[in-house]
Amino acid sequence: MSEVMQTVALRDGLNGAAALIETELDALLPVPEGEEHRLVEAMRYAVMGGGKRMRGFLAIETARMFSVNITCAARVAASVEMLHAYSLIHDDLPAMDDDDLRRGKPSCHKAFDEATAILAGDALQTRAFEVLAEPDTHSDAEVRCELVLALGAASGSRGMVGGQMIDIVSEGKDLAPPLITRLQALGRDLGAAFQIADDILDAEGSDATLGKTAGKDAAQGKATMVSVMGIERARMQAEHLAKQAATYLDSFGEKAALLRALAAYTVTRRN
Amino acid sequence: MSEVMQTVALRDGLNGAAALIETELDALLPVPEGEEHRLVEAMRYAVMGGGKRMRGFLAIETARMFSVNITCAARVAASVEMLHAYSLIHDDLPAMDDDDLRRGKPSCHKAFDEATAILAGDALQTRAFEVLAEPDTHSDAEVRCELVLALGAASGSRGMVGGQMIDIVSEGKDLAPPLITRLQALGRDLGAAFQIADDILDAEGSDATLGKTAGKDAAQGKATMVSVMGIERARMQAEHLAKQAATYLDSFGEKAALLRALAAYTVTRRN
Repeated sequence: MSEVMQTVALRDGLNGAAALIETELDALLPVPEGEEHRLVEAMRYAVMGGGKRMRGFLAIETARMFSVNITCAARVAASVEMLHAYSLIHDDLPAMDDDDLRRGKPSCHKAFDEATAILAGDALQTRAFEVLAEPDTHSDAEVRCELVLALGAASGSRGMVGGQMIDIVSEGKDLAPPLITRLQALGRDLGAAFQIADDILDAEGSDATLGKTAGKDAAQGKATMVSVMGIERARMQAEHLAKQAATYLDSFGEKAALLRALAAYTVTRRN
Repeated sequence: MSEVMQTVALRDGLNGAAALIETELDALLPVPEGEEHRLVEAMRYAVMGGGKRMRGFLAIETARMFSVNITCAARVAASVEMLHAYSLIHDDLPAMDDDDLRRGKPSCHKAFDEATAILAGDALQTRAFEVLAEPDTHSDAEVRCELVLALGAASGSRGMVGGQMIDIVSEGKDLAPPLITRLQALGRDLGAAFQIADDILDAEGSDATLGKTAGKDAAQGKATMVSVMGIERARMQAEHLAKQAATYLDSFGEKAALLRALAAYTVTRRN
């Protein structure tokens, strides 16, 4: 595929996956009713109609490479996006990153209030695990348990939440490379490349193109690859990681075309 | 069994279950190490060595009635206690109930900080679901998925977190009986009796006997059975619920002796 064709295919793939995930999320999230309607409204506010759905896209494309049924893939993608939305809600709280803007609109605790945002994040995490354990996700309960365990490992104290803790502890500190390597290992390759690209965009971007507050990392003295290495070396590192990630896809041929295009896009994207 | 014998058996049963659950929690929680050690310390601080382990005890005793293997029961009990500890951490946050004291010691965000407390609660929820999905919990993956779904239903937007949202929304409002009935339905019978007893103790008790701040419900204008019905009618309602719960146990004979003793204890306890 030519580079232009690849970009078009990637854009169509991302849009298609995002639409599929949106429909799935709408079906899987509770409906606002009864006394707890405000909670459900906050859950839906935080997870519906926003974001690039990159994690969900990765789940769907990886499933495609292994010929996994699309219903299963869409449910797993929706679960991953719920988990991601919960982490963003809690990260944005005043006690954490204190961010007023997310995906181009007020963050959850700004649109609702702090208590509702904490609870909405909590309930989204619960729902993410429930969806994986439900029979519709896969006919084999062993597979469903494996999915619950994989999401748990990726998101718990040894995964995402642990990484967020490291972020907080490291704020304002000069970091030696070993910890940076460690921070990076949590995301791995493509994830890491994506994160570095995020840091570069944060350093260079504006609120309008990002849809979230720009320049926050530097303002908070947060240790990122950009603050430690400088923008140019960080960019080289992201390109190296993206290239490395792409080589893992070699054996999958055309099936991995979109993921390969994504690896390239990761380091060229502008928002 | 005489009433005295019953009380002794219940005390021994509670102590035995608490010791078993403590050992299990220690084995199932991560060990503080690496850059995220502060997170794991906060998780352990909030969940280890505290509380009556009433929920874990209920899990173990109910499992005993149905001759469930004790390893499975202890893991489920530990998972339920992790879930409970996460809910207490988040409930105590300044944006929620703003409570400085829990189980006779500083609440998690006081002992650590708010960001760490939010993350520790998040990671405890994750771990609670992981434990249920792990093969050691039950040889049949269908059963493990059922456990994940049961914990999800009890704790998510239609369960515990939904109930907490209703609590917040109802603060300072005069509640009509239907909503109170609804609040109550979330806990059901014994759980509800236990809650009413908690509210009575909050209204009557001191910080020292409770191990948490007394009189907070009234100070926050929170709608409880006590504020709506008055202490005496609330106490009668708790006794009625506890008696009703005990009748469910009739067909289990001696196997349910401890649970029956617990139903009686629920409305006579002083802390």
